[in-house]
Amino acid sequence: MPGPLDPATMLAARARTARSSTIRDILVHANAPGVLSLAGGIPAPASFPMDRLRAAAIAALEAGPDAVQYGLTDGHPACRTVLADWTGAEVGPDDLVITTGSQQGLDLIGRVLVDPGDAVVVGDPDYLGALQALRGQGASLVAVPIDADGLRTDILARRLERGLRPKFVYVVANFHNPTGATLSEQRRVHLAELADAHGFLIVEDDPYGDLFFDAPPPPPIGRGSDRVIRLRSVSKTVAPGLRLGWMAAPRWVLDAVVVAKQSADLHTSSLSQAIVVELARDGAWRPAHLERSRSLYRKRRDALVDALRATFGDRAPFTVPGGGMFVWTRFEGFDATARLLDAVAAGVAYVPGAAFGVEHPDPAAVRLSFATTSVSELHEAVRRLHTVVTARD
Amino acid sequence: MPGPLDPATMLAARARTARSSTIRDILVHANAPGVLSLAGGIPAPASFPMDRLRAAAIAALEAGPDAVQYGLTDGHPACRTVLADWTGAEVGPDDLVITTGSQQGLDLIGRVLVDPGDAVVVGDPDYLGALQALRGQGASLVAVPIDADGLRTDILARRLERGLRPKFVYVVANFHNPTGATLSEQRRVHLAELADAHGFLIVEDDPYGDLFFDAPPPPPIGRGSDRVIRLRSVSKTVAPGLRLGWMAAPRWVLDAVVVAKQSADLHTSSLSQAIVVELARDGAWRPAHLERSRSLYRKRRDALVDALRATFGDRAPFTVPGGGMFVWTRFEGFDATARLLDAVAAGVAYVPGAAFGVEHPDPAAVRLSFATTSVSELHEAVRRLHTVVTARD
Repeated sequence: MPGPLDPATMLAARARTARSSTIRDILVHANAPGVLSLAGGIPAPASFPMDRLRAAAIAALEAGPDAVQYGLTDGHPACRTVLADWTGAEVGPDDLVITTGSQQGLDLIGRVLVDPGDAVVVGDPDYLGALQALRGQGASLVAVPIDADGLRTDILARRLERGLRPKFVYVVANFHNPTGATLSEQRRVHLAELADAHGFLIVEDDPYGDLFFDAPPPPPIGRGSDRVIRLRSVSKTVAPGLRLGWMAAPRWVLDAVVVAKQSADLHTSSLSQAIVVELARDGAWRPAHLERSRSLYRKRRDALVDALRATFGDRAPFTVPGGGMFVWTRFEGFDATARLLDAVAAGVAYVPGAAFGVEHPDPAAVRLSFATTSVSELHEAVRRLHTVVTARD
Repeated sequence: MPGPLDPATMLAARARTARSSTIRDILVHANAPGVLSLAGGIPAPASFPMDRLRAAAIAALEAGPDAVQYGLTDGHPACRTVLADWTGAEVGPDDLVITTGSQQGLDLIGRVLVDPGDAVVVGDPDYLGALQALRGQGASLVAVPIDADGLRTDILARRLERGLRPKFVYVVANFHNPTGATLSEQRRVHLAELADAHGFLIVEDDPYGDLFFDAPPPPPIGRGSDRVIRLRSVSKTVAPGLRLGWMAAPRWVLDAVVVAKQSADLHTSSLSQAIVVELARDGAWRPAHLERSRSLYRKRRDALVDALRATFGDRAPFTVPGGGMFVWTRFEGFDATARLLDAVAAGVAYVPGAAFGVEHPDPAAVRLSFATTSVSELHEAVRRLHTVVTARD
């Protein structure tokens, strides 16, 4: 009996892909010629320490074949020592696992902690890569609103009182993607207290914390707590193409994560790890490099903020982000999703805020990245945006 | 009400780690000082093209920031073009997705195709990383014996006739890990016919096919078929620490895999991809490099085979592998698992064959790798092994 490819298999595979591949679409938009892109979530190429990276790669490869040999699943000890130092919390080399970007950290957390149907708290709106990864693991997302001070822990507290029992709360506490909001110190304390009281974990995803423009963010959530999993990355502070992140977590979490990572990709690029070790040999480099990156992004943030205020005034309300890459605003009556193609035709790209929404997507919201656009281009981009927003649709 | 860390969460995470972390343990054993290791599944450092890799890294980083910027989830088009050419089957750049090693390819296949309880056919014995990844996805493994000509397709055919309906058959057709066996041409044809007749997919994992010592392996399984997913890797032909593999598959599989990979790690190291592109600029390099690697491993295979024959004679039966890294043999009455510590104490390491067993682990079997041990060391390693095997336990 001839057997065609089983249609059920094909349909099941398609169903798993049903949520459209937004981040990928964004990367395509960001590369369109002639378009000033405020859409990308990618760091400024000008921030990459190319000369240092080349010197580090040479040194790593001259040191011998270990730089390209198989390595340990939890990461090279020398690299873990560097990353423990870079974590900015009380973390030793054995308290972390090196991951293939912090995206993999999030994915592995989902694999080892989430059973289908488990409640996981996220912000509304929140980072798309997290929403996709958690949904992919079968998590039931519970959305808590985000305002200028970050996640509304008062609303979370009420839901917990009414019986919500999340496996964990996912939070980008510093210069949140997409809103730019930073969780206030008071709410950090509150969130850690809620975790203790109700027995859930906190997954603190912190790619932007080192990129502050005005003052460092408040202390990490639950410092010293055994309930916090911290995801970190060199993507925004060295370069994302190395695909190198790390996870600092309680030992029982790391043990499970290492087993899952073995199946996922055996280990993270040995060459990327060796490059990080070489970069760290000059202890003066990182502070100076971070200061240069902050200065670069601060100027761009200021330019975007100034242009928005000058062009839109009160019609584009926003909170000035204290770091990171994003300004979150809304244009009353504007349908950001429907008008995206008009915007691209006018030579400017953004990400519709609704893409990041969980329970209450705001059709008028937009996420504007100032990361990859020069100061003069940012002014022109806002001018084009104004044309689109004020045009009759 | 104070809530301690939920014990059920901790237990569930531990349960997911219950199968011991064997590959990791092997890497630790392989590094023990004074031990001649026949245990590692890692390639010879002497085979890594260190000078070319350094030149490629310099060229990639001098070409600009793209080498360390975020990239497309399916891989950089220039790298996909190179890998299509390296696939050795009729495959174009759009017929493949770049993965973080072929281990990730296997993991992603599991994610998009396997629902808990689905039957997946593997060899008995078979590659541990595959068994772990597939079990982790909830697959119900159906083991089909492997002999000197590879997977027993006659036994598979009988099981299919009796109602077996696998989602796919996983097969390392060339120089199998751990047995060294190569699937005969006749069985390749038979397997492709069975896939057509019964509507299952074939996942052909082929890390060793380019490392042949005597003659190239038979043509790829199901050439031109839309039922074959091919996993490939540069781990054994360039260097494993780059963590770069690829998957050539029907479009509907690739579409689902790209969505899963986005959540898994966004994309594979841009620097590793750029290095592969640079390596390929000299079209004469790869054939010459492969010839050098084949020559290196061929000498070591010959040394191990000669030493085993001279030392054990008929008491260590094996099939001479035509390529790859492994000799699979057994010592009647020997308990390879129980005696591993004795062997390490005597200065030689191997992997007990039982570790690779699915339904019928053979306690007397061992996997011996000739990849990372020099010719003279191989003779000494076999001498030590003989001491352990012939000692009274």
